[in-house]
Amino acid sequence: MDEVIADTYGAMLDWLVDRHGARWSAEALHGRQIFDVLELEVADALRTAMHDGAFFADLPVIEGSQAALAAIAEHCELFVTSAAMEFPNSLGPKFLWLRRHFPFVDPLNIVFCGDKSIIAADCLIDDNARHFARFGGQGIVFSSPHNVDVTGYPRIRRWDEALAVLSEVFPAALAHSGVDAP
Amino acid sequence: MDEVIADTYGAMLDWLVDRHGARWSAEALHGRQIFDVLELEVADALRTAMHDGAFFADLPVIEGSQAALAAIAEHCELFVTSAAMEFPNSLGPKFLWLRRHFPFVDPLNIVFCGDKSIIAADCLIDDNARHFARFGGQGIVFSSPHNVDVTGYPRIRRWDEALAVLSEVFPAALAHSGVDAP
Repeated sequence: MDEVIADTYGAMLDWLVDRHGARWSAEALHGRQIFDVLELEVADALRTAMHDGAFFADLPVIEGSQAALAAIAEHCELFVTSAAMEFPNSLGPKFLWLRRHFPFVDPLNIVFCGDKSIIAADCLIDDNARHFARFGGQGIVFSSPHNVDVTGYPRIRRWDEALAVLSEVFPAALAHSGVDAP
Repeated sequence: MDEVIADTYGAMLDWLVDRHGARWSAEALHGRQIFDVLELEVADALRTAMHDGAFFADLPVIEGSQAALAAIAEHCELFVTSAAMEFPNSLGPKFLWLRRHFPFVDPLNIVFCGDKSIIAADCLIDDNARHFARFGGQGIVFSSPHNVDVTGYPRIRRWDEALAVLSEVFPAALAHSGVDAP
């Protein structure tokens, strides 16, 4: 969910610039998690802000994600999962955000967890490759500035190429999508 | 979670007796879900009460569940899952309830979902056998008045027999539990 369909990364950068000025450039964050480049007290302040669930209530939708998930849902059984237990107060706001921006996702197909090894699925599209280590299906990296150097998995750089990437990884499932493999 | 470690069933019966008098006996509910025996308007009122997350904040802990899960966690990787998406306002209260009563459960091992077919586990202990239909592991029924007639799965009637049942179903995992198979 975060950094894949909800622009949490952008909201974190906005928060940093608002509170601490533009000390973090896209270049400084290239290939690194935001929390890994912050001084300890700034990281603590950002975590405190994120522990207030309101941080997650109005995140921008990542471009193209609604159309792409709607298209995927025509061919596959679609679940949306978020490692929301890291910020428990985000549970309610995240649920409402999904209902508002992705009304076609069955609420019973929303999964809030912490350790995604518990997910039984053929495919997991995630910005954090750490979730793939014990995942039983195929991990697909969704590009975010922090994961540009991650290799070893298929990659979706933008949602408008998602169906093409999926049709290459799962040719049978997407056989009738009308999308040629890239 | 509900009716397995949290006594939601008892709280629902208490709510019915408080609001509508003792019209529902244990006998009337034997083998049936509470919602299946209520008149439409009473069912609607109960659902409304449950959509207020406070309903789930102070549920009694089911007898023996804390000791049993602590013992299981010594031998197995333990996750707690709840079909909480049916009552989205329960998400926050359920998380806090688990932290309070089951502090030894890693919060990253809490999973809130709707359709438990998404759970990748060797074993699922649940009062609702409907969750076993598409579950990839072994379902184990935890006894509740509504499921007394369910057959086809191993059954745990009380938490003090849980390790014995598990050691029969998964002899390798529980080999060193010190519990003899029943």
